Amino acid sequence: MPSSPNIPDLIRKKRDGEAHTPAELEALVLGYTRGEVPDYQISAWLMAVYLRGMTPQETADLTRVMADSGDQMNLGDLPHTVDKHSTGGVGDKTSLILTPMLAALGLTVAKMSGRGLAHTGGTIDKLESFPGWTPELPEDRFLAQAREIGLALVGQSRDLAPADGKLYALRDVTATVDCLPLIASSIMSKKLASGAHTVVLDVKVGAGAFMRTLEDGRALARAMVDIGTRAGRQVRAVLTDMDTPLGHMAGNSLEVQEALATLRGEGPADLTELCVALAVEALAAYGEDEAAAEARARATLEDGSALERFRAFIAAQGGDAALVDHPERLDVAPGRAEVMSPSSGYVERMDALAVGRAVLALGGGRERKGEPIDHGVGVELLKKPGEAVRAGEPVLRLYHRDGRGLEAARELLQAGLSVGEAAPTPEPLILDRVS
Amino acid sequence: MPSSPNIPDLIRKKRDGEAHTPAELEALVLGYTRGEVPDYQISAWLMAVYLRGMTPQETADLTRVMADSGDQMNLGDLPHTVDKHSTGGVGDKTSLILTPMLAALGLTVAKMSGRGLAHTGGTIDKLESFPGWTPELPEDRFLAQAREIGLALVGQSRDLAPADGKLYALRDVTATVDCLPLIASSIMSKKLASGAHTVVLDVKVGAGAFMRTLEDGRALARAMVDIGTRAGRQVRAVLTDMDTPLGHMAGNSLEVQEALATLRGEGPADLTELCVALAVEALAAYGEDEAAAEARARATLEDGSALERFRAFIAAQGGDAALVDHPERLDVAPGRAEVMSPSSGYVERMDALAVGRAVLALGGGRERKGEPIDHGVGVELLKKPGEAVRAGEPVLRLYHRDGRGLEAARELLQAGLSVGEAAPTPEPLILDRVS
Repeated sequence: MPSSPNIPDLIRKKRDGEAHTPAELEALVLGYTRGEVPDYQISAWLMAVYLRGMTPQETADLTRVMADSGDQMNLGDLPHTVDKHSTGGVGDKTSLILTPMLAALGLTVAKMSGRGLAHTGGTIDKLESFPGWTPELPEDRFLAQAREIGLALVGQSRDLAPADGKLYALRDVTATVDCLPLIASSIMSKKLASGAHTVVLDVKVGAGAFMRTLEDGRALARAMVDIGTRAGRQVRAVLTDMDTPLGHMAGNSLEVQEALATLRGEGPADLTELCVALAVEALAAYGEDEAAAEARARATLEDGSALERFRAFIAAQGGDAALVDHPERLDVAPGRAEVMSPSSGYVERMDALAVGRAVLALGGGRERKGEPIDHGVGVELLKKPGEAVRAGEPVLRLYHRDGRGLEAARELLQAGLSVGEAAPTPEPLILDRVS
Repeated sequence: MPSSPNIPDLIRKKRDGEAHTPAELEALVLGYTRGEVPDYQISAWLMAVYLRGMTPQETADLTRVMADSGDQMNLGDLPHTVDKHSTGGVGDKTSLILTPMLAALGLTVAKMSGRGLAHTGGTIDKLESFPGWTPELPEDRFLAQAREIGLALVGQSRDLAPADGKLYALRDVTATVDCLPLIASSIMSKKLASGAHTVVLDVKVGAGAFMRTLEDGRALARAMVDIGTRAGRQVRAVLTDMDTPLGHMAGNSLEVQEALATLRGEGPADLTELCVALAVEALAAYGEDEAAAEARARATLEDGSALERFRAFIAAQGGDAALVDHPERLDVAPGRAEVMSPSSGYVERMDALAVGRAVLALGGGRERKGEPIDHGVGVELLKKPGEAVRAGEPVLRLYHRDGRGLEAARELLQAGLSVGEAAPTPEPLILDRVS
């Protein structure tokens, strides 16, 4: 088996718990990305990383090497650039609301977003609920739009951090995915390559999230903030509950409708609070006092300034901006079905993962990259955990297209729902902050 | 990347420190051997094994799976079968002496032996110093010869434990070689497939050996004895010093000459003692009293019975048996050179690894499988550690062919030699026994 001469020595070093130099990480990661180091050596190294860990400096160096492995966005002299990342949840339409809020607050969002995969949604899919809207902009137009209206969102068109994609595919088949330094460097390599000065992170914790416990989520948040700090960026993280979906809607057009309501100041409390909290973090990163920041952030939802930026953004990227003011015209699937409460009492649990999988079953998500999706289907949470219900009262509404996936979705939702006799103790949405 | 569906789960299990079932080990190892499981999954699993270890039961199960991965020798009703394995040393001609001793003692050796690689020699190479001797016998002749004279040695002609060869190649490039359960199962898989009821192991410890410390050697010996016991075999191990070469000769024909001297009862003390000790272990495995066994073993060297079996063995496999009684006719390279003592005092150290590499440099070994070797070259230790020397007195003699590799060999030997003022404390050759 051919191999670069020093790769076994580098594997041995990590195997024995030593820390790599930046040059060693380059030899491993760039060698692999260029196809010079075979996958069987990198997978052994990944397992050694999994079991031996990495120091904060190593993790930051690894992130830098991955960020440097491909294109890097140059946001030039755009003022107060902010990027945002969520570790992935269900019903998470936060980016649709937060990014125009940030633009209205005088910051600049020039951002790449992803599509949904498996049970988690993606911002690009949601925005494509607006007929005509395109995630593809030439770079000069992308930068000009960001400068003019403070907001431009495109798909993953540029080859950002290709090392991450290649490593992730290998991790996925070698049981080395859930490893803190590898998760943190994977996320942050793309954020560093994306060029924004400030990054706000929404680290989801709970049944519908990658991080199941607050302790794990906090460790991930700390690792990502540390990587950003070492790279000279401002990174701040909010840890939020993802036991239950955010807001009431899951599914692309349904989430856009809920986001538009929130931008009009009429959104659900949890979603509104999270958007305000993330905006406060972005402003605080630029030195603004938190109390003042919170008041200014909240005002963008009440005075219509965030909605105005959103309208301009949809129009600038070819979308039908009339829908922003007439969300009822968005394509929502006509089929309706409901899941009833099996007993009287209180909703104890409405499992986020179950809701995400139900949307997938209805056709609103994709199992594999590149699959088309139905933007109109989804699930509405009529009651959320803590609310009282009577036996036989509808708890969930399904929006389906000709019954496709309806039974599977219904079964998933029924399994994910618990109704108990006592009102559960309400849990806060925002669990912690790390900066 | 395609993969068998449950392999990542199995990697995860070992990653998390759990023990595999025999069926899981079959899925991994036989899947890999058949080419159904890709190397990048097995290398991640090997690293998890390296860092998480294996229970004795798992190690025994892994060995069984590897032993069952290819052909298995059926030694049928041959009486008192014994196999012998050395973990590899320099100047180790023990098998040439021990196997005819065992035959003379009424045991049966029907054994496969290897060729030398890198700095360690191989029994087959040594035997090929006899013109005409062949390591290739049809199975029926191999078994008939073993029955008639108690001794038949062939090369690795049958496909024994192919899983081991494939796993070893992957371990070699992924820093997962020096892992106790993997070493023990690698050795023992071939021993189990070779079919002998009793196996005596010579576990070398020291500078010229794979195991550098007595503690590591003892752990390996215990693991191999345990595997054998769980497989219903009798396995006994002797731990021996390999800081310095065994006897005085290193190099194929030179070692054969020294082995013949030992078979005539005129061999160096260390070599003679080791052969007697290993023969005692083999007899003890068949229930013989140790004191009686030692007397009987020693007698085979003094009464010529072991030499007689060796002569018959060489003749039976086509070799020129006249050379057994005229070892001076063996082809020894005519070139001579010497390494002198740099000062007066006592030989403190004559590094076995340096001697092995010097023989390799002279052309007496191979870097890669299949390379031809020069049987006539080698190194003679004129003085061994503990012996007094004067400044300028020859300590080592090199046997070279037209000066090939002479300077490199001389440099290696000079670097491996230390002469000090005080006589070093003599270390015992046999360090421990495990059964």
